[in-house]
Amino acid sequence: MKVIRSAAEMHEAVAAVKRAGRRIALVPTMGALHEGHAALLRKAREQNAAVIVSIYVNPTQFGPNEDLSRYPRTFDADLTLCIRESVDVIFAPTDAEMYPGGQTTAWVEEQALAKRLEGERRPGHFRGVCTIVAKLFNLTEPHVAVFGQKDFQQLKVIERMTRDLSYPIQIVPVPTVREPDGLALSSRNQYLSAEERAQAVVLYRALGIAQDLFNGGEHNAHRLQTAMQRTIQLAPAARLDYVEIVESETLLPVHEAKAGNVALLAVHIGKTRLIDNLIL
Amino acid sequence: MKVIRSAAEMHEAVAAVKRAGRRIALVPTMGALHEGHAALLRKAREQNAAVIVSIYVNPTQFGPNEDLSRYPRTFDADLTLCIRESVDVIFAPTDAEMYPGGQTTAWVEEQALAKRLEGERRPGHFRGVCTIVAKLFNLTEPHVAVFGQKDFQQLKVIERMTRDLSYPIQIVPVPTVREPDGLALSSRNQYLSAEERAQAVVLYRALGIAQDLFNGGEHNAHRLQTAMQRTIQLAPAARLDYVEIVESETLLPVHEAKAGNVALLAVHIGKTRLIDNLIL
Repeated sequence: MKVIRSAAEMHEAVAAVKRAGRRIALVPTMGALHEGHAALLRKAREQNAAVIVSIYVNPTQFGPNEDLSRYPRTFDADLTLCIRESVDVIFAPTDAEMYPGGQTTAWVEEQALAKRLEGERRPGHFRGVCTIVAKLFNLTEPHVAVFGQKDFQQLKVIERMTRDLSYPIQIVPVPTVREPDGLALSSRNQYLSAEERAQAVVLYRALGIAQDLFNGGEHNAHRLQTAMQRTIQLAPAARLDYVEIVESETLLPVHEAKAGNVALLAVHIGKTRLIDNLIL
Repeated sequence: MKVIRSAAEMHEAVAAVKRAGRRIALVPTMGALHEGHAALLRKAREQNAAVIVSIYVNPTQFGPNEDLSRYPRTFDADLTLCIRESVDVIFAPTDAEMYPGGQTTAWVEEQALAKRLEGERRPGHFRGVCTIVAKLFNLTEPHVAVFGQKDFQQLKVIERMTRDLSYPIQIVPVPTVREPDGLALSSRNQYLSAEERAQAVVLYRALGIAQDLFNGGEHNAHRLQTAMQRTIQLAPAARLDYVEIVESETLLPVHEAKAGNVALLAVHIGKTRLIDNLIL
């Protein structure tokens, strides 16, 4: 396994892989790797391709009051996990490599799917995400890029960006990996106290209740959302940000839920903001 | 020479070139090729690379009242010129290939250099240009892309976009090719009547007067601009849009002109809008 720090070296490595006629699978991450990332890496490995994992905490996707400075950086542990998962290349660039000149004036912006939900709560977030993913696509020229369904809106925004900017890249989604009690794996789970961690299961429980009601014949989106809200309220440390049931491709809210629609929620647990979702 | 119409076929051809270890030089055009384009193609040929020329009249860079529908389409003549210049691949996609789904919601936008001058007069123009060039970069994965200095602001916007989106692509500028009387070659020169064509030389004459005054020691930008304005006014068919002297990298106006600054102008000749520039 090779660790690459510079854009120029990354580009050279890509050229060598392409000369060898080999495919490339990219897994973009912000590090602090956990078993959710391991599932992405295994999906990448299945693509019969050289696996590149990028590890870069991208400043432009964090808002001014968000957790950029305290976001977990665990490079040594990340390295061990990547070796275990037979990664070919770790691309871990510096800020100076990713933002030469100290700032950027050219941006990639998706202007439909990115407007609502996370985009509304985190202004500039998806502009930062789209721009850094485009940069990683440009530096690694992958055939396949793997993204988790845990960040469902991000997945859809990236799919749209990939189509609209004519990237010849297949976006491969991977189902959310969960703890035994249902909590979706997230690098931000580290922020939770023991008490908060216990209560954080409420996100998954709310989604499960929506699924149960839906299976039992309740398709009214408002009533499903109300049931989820009530579940969240049962956890004293939890404060609901949003809960919505949306159409999976447009991310627009539905009145009558159908199979394939997606329940999305964002909840503050103490000072930690968590998101989760479930495809009905 | 190969003519490719689809994105998928283009991507396959690129993969084959890369497997062969060959470099790729891209020349993006809107067709209606003239000797200015031929200079771009020859510069591309010098790069020791497979030369891809794209021919695509991109609708998203035209404003609603601009000349999209009457922009000259001369594919047979373009083909002849490309054969003469030993082009390897013509990529001439359909609108459906370039804008699948009929529209795009993800855009590339440069937000500093693109704001003023052409960007101010043609809202959305550079967003369309940056987006289509990014799409062409993504489909052809070139090592080098060649652009004319005739569209000086476009060249600078593309250079910035290439840097800020981490494209591992070298942007190669080519000096403006001119008619014997000095008129810069442009596909839009075809719109001019014989009388207008005769008067259109006034753009180059104005630039020449600025250069002469500068060489003679006049460095006050305001006085240089006034001299250019007066020259334009001598042509009855001419109506000045803007004339500016700017710093070449920031495109910001200067008070005292220095060598390397750029005089830029846009002039309506009858109903045809022409641009030109000169590096002092």
